[in-house]
Amino acid sequence: MTADPVPGYDPRVFRARTFHDALEAFEAGRDTPRGYLERCLEAVAAREPVVRAFACLNADDARAMADTSTARWKQGRPLSRIDGMPVGIEDLLETRDMPTALGCAACRGNFPKRDNAAVAALRQAGAVIFGKTVTAELGGTHPGPTTNPFDPARTPGGSSSGSAAAVAARMMPAAIGSQVGGSIIRPAGFCGNVALKPSQGGINRGERQTTSMSTHGVHAGAIEDMWQVAIEIVRRIGGDRGGPGLLGPATPPAGIRPGGLIVLETAGWSGLDAASRTAFETLLERLGQAGVTLLRRGDDPLIEALERALADAEEVCTAITAWENRWTYRALVDQAPDGVSDRAKATLERAEAMRVDDYRALLLKREVAQRHYAQAMALADGAVTLACPGPAPPWPGDRPGEPLAPRPTGDAVFNYPASLLFAPSVSLPLMGVGGLPVGAQIMGRAGDDARVTAQARWLLDTAAPVVVD
Amino acid sequence: MTADPVPGYDPRVFRARTFHDALEAFEAGRDTPRGYLERCLEAVAAREPVVRAFACLNADDARAMADTSTARWKQGRPLSRIDGMPVGIEDLLETRDMPTALGCAACRGNFPKRDNAAVAALRQAGAVIFGKTVTAELGGTHPGPTTNPFDPARTPGGSSSGSAAAVAARMMPAAIGSQVGGSIIRPAGFCGNVALKPSQGGINRGERQTTSMSTHGVHAGAIEDMWQVAIEIVRRIGGDRGGPGLLGPATPPAGIRPGGLIVLETAGWSGLDAASRTAFETLLERLGQAGVTLLRRGDDPLIEALERALADAEEVCTAITAWENRWTYRALVDQAPDGVSDRAKATLERAEAMRVDDYRALLLKREVAQRHYAQAMALADGAVTLACPGPAPPWPGDRPGEPLAPRPTGDAVFNYPASLLFAPSVSLPLMGVGGLPVGAQIMGRAGDDARVTAQARWLLDTAAPVVVD
Repeated sequence: MTADPVPGYDPRVFRARTFHDALEAFEAGRDTPRGYLERCLEAVAAREPVVRAFACLNADDARAMADTSTARWKQGRPLSRIDGMPVGIEDLLETRDMPTALGCAACRGNFPKRDNAAVAALRQAGAVIFGKTVTAELGGTHPGPTTNPFDPARTPGGSSSGSAAAVAARMMPAAIGSQVGGSIIRPAGFCGNVALKPSQGGINRGERQTTSMSTHGVHAGAIEDMWQVAIEIVRRIGGDRGGPGLLGPATPPAGIRPGGLIVLETAGWSGLDAASRTAFETLLERLGQAGVTLLRRGDDPLIEALERALADAEEVCTAITAWENRWTYRALVDQAPDGVSDRAKATLERAEAMRVDDYRALLLKREVAQRHYAQAMALADGAVTLACPGPAPPWPGDRPGEPLAPRPTGDAVFNYPASLLFAPSVSLPLMGVGGLPVGAQIMGRAGDDARVTAQARWLLDTAAPVVVD
Repeated sequence: MTADPVPGYDPRVFRARTFHDALEAFEAGRDTPRGYLERCLEAVAAREPVVRAFACLNADDARAMADTSTARWKQGRPLSRIDGMPVGIEDLLETRDMPTALGCAACRGNFPKRDNAAVAALRQAGAVIFGKTVTAELGGTHPGPTTNPFDPARTPGGSSSGSAAAVAARMMPAAIGSQVGGSIIRPAGFCGNVALKPSQGGINRGERQTTSMSTHGVHAGAIEDMWQVAIEIVRRIGGDRGGPGLLGPATPPAGIRPGGLIVLETAGWSGLDAASRTAFETLLERLGQAGVTLLRRGDDPLIEALERALADAEEVCTAITAWENRWTYRALVDQAPDGVSDRAKATLERAEAMRVDDYRALLLKREVAQRHYAQAMALADGAVTLACPGPAPPWPGDRPGEPLAPRPTGDAVFNYPASLLFAPSVSLPLMGVGGLPVGAQIMGRAGDDARVTAQARWLLDTAAPVVVD
């Protein structure tokens, strides 16, 4: 395999691989899922040597799945609207036919031979389980080998590094990721994907129930595919235990213009680079011109109060998650002290210094922020902010003997709020800055995933993408 | 080892093994945790051949743990008030030094070498992890080999069969169990234990987060030990992710007389045998004489409405749990078709016939019942009912060629309500019927575990146990 040259990114011309628009050709017999898969495998052959999105590629089995899907389409009996869709699975989720190493040396060789509930649902819907995509170690901050498809010197973001990069490199139309802080929306922002981080509990996490703030989600090249994948999964397995899960139509909702959106600045605003801020303000201007009322922190005391309640979202998110992961991490470190990164060990150390009352106080802070959000949401139809703080940063790797870089997969500063608020969020590839993607993000009320998707669709259809050099 | 004769049960004379009253002797040097453990091991030697409470006994390691505890007490530096307490762990929870077979042939040899969060907490508190106690298969209804300590022809109840029986056979002062329908309070009722099924989320379940209605809990010989074990665990690991966990004092709360209690009849009432009903009505009379106001379904429309909302508690509980366990069960059956019981396979079949909207409708029913309970609880300080429908039934084993007995570990009809309501519940060994234990049960508002424990303590101190032949 020889590597293709790296393309620059321009949101006005970049076209991701899409699937929803292939169904007609499948029905008419002009295309087949097997043919679709072979085109994906060609992209893998061309890009994978540099992008390194896969923890495990399952080409032979994928071809067999694509052939059975092809047979179903020929018989006019597809199992769903994603029958034959090649889908990547973040290597945190169990798959019966591939190992699940969680990006962690201590878990190398882990092969439980069972499917995460979402993976089982994808199979039931006829999707082609294409491979395991690289995750940052244990879904945390310690990076895997994946590079940004638009500049191999830069991170694709994490933890769903491989899912984001594989979609951006046109290797597949959709991939599953998961977010506890910023692990779906940030890499989607850095890679120019459309992505859904559902409301908390939106998609049944199966065996991955340890944390109170993580969700499965979908990276895709098109919002239609993003919604279709999510709803096909949830129609079969529901949401997390104890809740109704993602609710919404069986096909992608039509676009809806939001009457008003709150512009959330949050903690990332002050550190945002000038070019990205210009791009985002230009995007907001275009939304205003298209008839969306924009409300900012000076416009209403409820918004100001919400901004203040979100000021320490990063600290609250990371500490809650560290506490919740404490026993899993401890067991791993005890079993394989050399198989866990120093980054993860530092997280464990912080967690083990916490007392249960610290955790309780953090949960109350989260609840307070959620109350503020519920109040502020009465003023508008949703909120808009960036998906990531500018273009993906360079990642030259850790240097022996020097302190660990704090954020090798980039800063999740714009993602902690949606995670903390349990809010649905969609990443929108509407900006290019210096030849790299910078995502915008639209958020809604918890449970309003379908409405946020509809608003996102309207934004994608309406707002001309912004390019800043 | 020769088996001791089976003792009959009389709640007026039976004395379980207790630990809280040994601390003074440890401090004074008149007794040691090692000596305490040896007395437990003597009881194991005498009773285990017939009771069969252990899935795995860890006597050598337990002796080592008891010796280090003995050293700590000698230095006057115990780690907690349960330092040196021998505690059994239901074989559903992972333990780093013993296999975890979940009572399931398909899981035989499963040995993940890590501790469930609650087990880790017990070790931190200095408890002696004594052995794994038999569970019904996967925490369901298919029984293990354990027999009732008061009649080996009868079930000890399940799923925490071994934990209940080991405490009742005086093999240990406390053991961990878990309940999703009736798996703590029913076996406690059948075995004459004091037991706590905490409010939903009360004790961090660690890796066992799959279901929305299960809790870890504690079987004990005394209410002081019951509370101490629970609070020592939760002070170290908190509750389930996303909630505050069990709240209450660091030592057992003093007894409190409830002003009023709702007598919950629920679905079990009509099928209750005459002797057990007589025993329970006698107990109620004694509570009334002690100044407790008792309210029954005729006394207030809110109570009548609650009873009606609980009428199908069994169906709602079991269907919710079947759905939530669906993917775990499916993966097990796929991996080892002969390693899963026909009972579990029948549950899986029912689950796989459900659609996600069926599950959503059941969650709403659960919420409605919880709203009714919250309203009715404004009328009283708690609720009282039976812990089990009469004495433990005989269990002669399945007969080849005949239909499976529906409830080999007894009927959880009196336990589904507390599970469905997320309510804390304490089993009280206050009745003996025909020489066998029949527990009473006191329930409180979700979150009121300490108050329910205080009321339970008052009942145990105040109400003379009832004996009916």
